[in-house]
Amino acid sequence: MEAIRWENNALYLLDQTRLPAEERWLRYTEYRAVARAIRSMVVRGAPAIGITAAYAMVLAAQENVCKGDFPVAMSQAKAVLAASRPTAVNLFWALDRMERCWQTAGPDLPRLEEEARAIHREDIQMNEAMGKAGAELVPEGARVLTHCNAGALATGGYGTALGVIRAAHAQGKVSMVYADETRPLLQGARLTACELVKDQIPVTLICDDMAGCLMAQGKIDMVVVGCDRMAANGDFANKIGTYSLAVLAKHHGIPFYTALPSSTIDLSIPDGSHIPVEQRDGQEVACFAGVQTGPLGVQTWNPAFDVTPHDLLTAVITERGVLHPPFDRKLAGLVHN
Amino acid sequence: MEAIRWENNALYLLDQTRLPAEERWLRYTEYRAVARAIRSMVVRGAPAIGITAAYAMVLAAQENVCKGDFPVAMSQAKAVLAASRPTAVNLFWALDRMERCWQTAGPDLPRLEEEARAIHREDIQMNEAMGKAGAELVPEGARVLTHCNAGALATGGYGTALGVIRAAHAQGKVSMVYADETRPLLQGARLTACELVKDQIPVTLICDDMAGCLMAQGKIDMVVVGCDRMAANGDFANKIGTYSLAVLAKHHGIPFYTALPSSTIDLSIPDGSHIPVEQRDGQEVACFAGVQTGPLGVQTWNPAFDVTPHDLLTAVITERGVLHPPFDRKLAGLVHN
Repeated sequence: MEAIRWENNALYLLDQTRLPAEERWLRYTEYRAVARAIRSMVVRGAPAIGITAAYAMVLAAQENVCKGDFPVAMSQAKAVLAASRPTAVNLFWALDRMERCWQTAGPDLPRLEEEARAIHREDIQMNEAMGKAGAELVPEGARVLTHCNAGALATGGYGTALGVIRAAHAQGKVSMVYADETRPLLQGARLTACELVKDQIPVTLICDDMAGCLMAQGKIDMVVVGCDRMAANGDFANKIGTYSLAVLAKHHGIPFYTALPSSTIDLSIPDGSHIPVEQRDGQEVACFAGVQTGPLGVQTWNPAFDVTPHDLLTAVITERGVLHPPFDRKLAGLVHN
Repeated sequence: MEAIRWENNALYLLDQTRLPAEERWLRYTEYRAVARAIRSMVVRGAPAIGITAAYAMVLAAQENVCKGDFPVAMSQAKAVLAASRPTAVNLFWALDRMERCWQTAGPDLPRLEEEARAIHREDIQMNEAMGKAGAELVPEGARVLTHCNAGALATGGYGTALGVIRAAHAQGKVSMVYADETRPLLQGARLTACELVKDQIPVTLICDDMAGCLMAQGKIDMVVVGCDRMAANGDFANKIGTYSLAVLAKHHGIPFYTALPSSTIDLSIPDGSHIPVEQRDGQEVACFAGVQTGPLGVQTWNPAFDVTPHDLLTAVITERGVLHPPFDRKLAGLVHN
């Protein structure tokens, strides 16, 4: 499965808000519309957001290539895209990389398009590399729990956490994947379960409040999730609910991993307390698919992410191998080398 | 709010599967239909199931009072009702109490009706007593987390866990109740949040995967939940997701309580491993509020309850006061005295 395509100077996004009921591709030729698509989660997943933003900067360049003040217009476009969602650092990483490109090459459309394509291509390569590295952590006959969607749909293709699962499954080591449905937006049910069913990887869908009981019954051998931003010390933000799983895994002595490309590491912040966590519309909690579930007007709390402290992490899976604690120096080395 | 009424020789149940969209009362004059109502969760909550089964035995008596073999017919009715749901022990407790009544008094309809009414009335009295006892555990300005619905709708009225919250709120001690929505059947969103809004008790609805993050942010002072069956050592079954909350509360040093009438204590089993846990239809997991969320035909896992070991419990709130660990002798004393 793939969620992002660039064809004939236009960006195509698979509308992930409609899955699995409908596979609808949307065409974008205007960067502001892409910013809205990121905010409304037509595309989601930290690496996928970064790739999308890179292509959106190509659209911005197309719009402004014949106008004066190209750098000013590009900086404005960058600011609009940067304001779309606050937590996933890949967004800012990709925008900075595109900025370096236009600052050195100017309004060179083929060059900018190639940079965005490179970000996309490299993301898939990194996913495959972290899949290979992470698969070594997966025991024979493993029953693996994951949360949200860190799969092909969240990335350029293949996936981070699901990349590890895909690679381990190809080696015959995965006996069952348990997918948390991941309220409020149900990415586990709508996206992860669908990806795995399509790939014929055995999957069992559960509600988020069932994970602890599964662990207590000895039915989980490891947990692997994605990551939206990792601080210099290894604390990391990921989809709300990740932190609960990390505590539960610790309580049951189950290894807990996150898989991420180095573009997700933010050395500018020392720890997780500095990660801005997006609060989303409370109607996501009180409703689903037009069906009101809570009382009308009920107060809600709806953080899109939570922060898991590094001491709950068994290891970090990256495209350059597996990092065991202590993480700080190893993370710095990964980014700087 | 109330969910169960007995009027003019008929049982009326508020259809809890339709709440909050619709307040529909269903009328029952036939015990087999009541068994189906319990199975399909028209009525749910351990104490409410017990009360309902008691009234259903009055319906069975009405049906069989003029026939031969009254005791045989009543035993058959008891067996049908006992097979409706396996986990909540109040069902069996109420059926046994009704059985003692017809075994001593025979087909005495007024006597049987009075026994069922007594079970109902005593349940409300026990709830009020445990509310009063439990309120003493609630600190000033408390932010209280609860799961599922252990309120008026789950009991004869007032509630077990919500009874404690109601009593503490009447004393001005509750600043916020956080209600887990409680997938798959959303009793927290549909029932608990509605009960609290109606009573003007401040409530914030969250998804189940948000509870850990709330605790990490210091926003929860105590957790109180209901109970479907407590073993002799204090291990207890309650709605799926309760165990995860207990582990999370332990990790964060937050007091964790269950509130229950003594009819929920099952001294015949030494520990939680002997509690039969109901597995329900997987479509409850693969759908959300009637909308398909997972891929069609996806495998699911759907236990209705989980078992929390007694060592995660700070105290047990009963109609005769608060029990602190060790629980075994105190629970036995409660039932036998």
